[in-house]
Amino acid sequence: MTRGEQLYEGKAKIIYATDDDDYRILYFKDDATAFDGAKKGTIVAKGIINNQVSCRIFTMLAENGIPTHLVKKLSEREVLVKNVAIMPVEVVVRNIIAGSLAKRMGRPEGEKLPFPIVEYYYKNDDLHDPMINRDHVLAFGLASEAQIDQARELALKINSILQPFFADRDIILVDYKLEFGDFHGQLLLADEICPDTCRLWDAESLEKMDKDRFRRDLGKVEEAYVEVCRRVCDQ
Amino acid sequence: MTRGEQLYEGKAKIIYATDDDDYRILYFKDDATAFDGAKKGTIVAKGIINNQVSCRIFTMLAENGIPTHLVKKLSEREVLVKNVAIMPVEVVVRNIIAGSLAKRMGRPEGEKLPFPIVEYYYKNDDLHDPMINRDHVLAFGLASEAQIDQARELALKINSILQPFFADRDIILVDYKLEFGDFHGQLLLADEICPDTCRLWDAESLEKMDKDRFRRDLGKVEEAYVEVCRRVCDQ
Repeated sequence: MTRGEQLYEGKAKIIYATDDDDYRILYFKDDATAFDGAKKGTIVAKGIINNQVSCRIFTMLAENGIPTHLVKKLSEREVLVKNVAIMPVEVVVRNIIAGSLAKRMGRPEGEKLPFPIVEYYYKNDDLHDPMINRDHVLAFGLASEAQIDQARELALKINSILQPFFADRDIILVDYKLEFGDFHGQLLLADEICPDTCRLWDAESLEKMDKDRFRRDLGKVEEAYVEVCRRVCDQ
Repeated sequence: MTRGEQLYEGKAKIIYATDDDDYRILYFKDDATAFDGAKKGTIVAKGIINNQVSCRIFTMLAENGIPTHLVKKLSEREVLVKNVAIMPVEVVVRNIIAGSLAKRMGRPEGEKLPFPIVEYYYKNDDLHDPMINRDHVLAFGLASEAQIDQARELALKINSILQPFFADRDIILVDYKLEFGDFHGQLLLADEICPDTCRLWDAESLEKMDKDRFRRDLGKVEEAYVEVCRRVCDQ
């Protein structure tokens, strides 16, 4: 599969065409942004790490029955994926209170939720990705009823696989963002799952091992990404 | 039923005890607030109008099978109600895009929704009543599964009664806020339904006939409330 023209450059990835319109190549960059792009920076080797972590996780999820866009890893920073029509709804799964949920509900970070919470956000930079509910998704035609219900079901199934996967590696899966897309009528897990899109805390020290280190200027950002990669990929 | 001690003073109403703890007296004030209390004012005779409009609507809803807290109107500004344990979740029903939904989704006010949207807000002044979803309601114990599902069902049933009721009076029911409360195991419609809690537009001119006239300094606030009262109560 040959890498064709650049179709889109996002905050963390570039999407390239291939010679088959059913497939795309994703290229993982080192660029890091936070707070809606207000904060910009670079995390050295982030693209390499995220591609490796995400491919490992997507492969593991596929082995556990989750349909994903992953075809195969092509190089350190490149992955071949199915060309899905991305649903403009980010699906967030939360196991522990942190980030915007802590602020929204006035609760301290770290409180365990009695069951996983699923939230939907409208993917729209101009509107700063507002939180929406299932009614908004349907009324504004962001997804069909079957799609949003399947996305929720898949998200909860993914959570039941990912939580023990990370726990085995002494990592608490606090919360994370998933994206789904349609590929010839089938809903596939798309985008990436990595320290950019998850909150991951060390199970012993509760130290943050994810993009919050960059967002909150906690230092040792690269070291955290490398350590997540080591625990996820070496085991 | 004798009016006892003042139990609580809210932004628009005062709650009094009675000699039977199963009952409360609500007293409707003329105080008007907006934007989380940042804007304060008075709408002359608002308390009288809102009590009259709300009693008319609650009576009509009860005749149509909606369980409500209303026992009976006691005076111009006072109503006797069942002492419900208010669910700390505001239920908003929307038929037309306006207000925070227009902002959230980047759409113009006035667009008709393909079907009514239901939103939940956590009643908490300090947190500025954040929007939440069903998962938050359950995970934070704000209501039981049966309660929140019944609240949604009642809200949609109320909407199917209220929309034609207002349409018959040449008023478009744009959106509105409902509150529910538990009374000995039964979920009752509580609080009030009036120009403070609804967006109401004249069906011909599309002129606002509700608290947005106060919020947005549109003038003729009292006139709008009186006109709503006339159309709701005289027919």
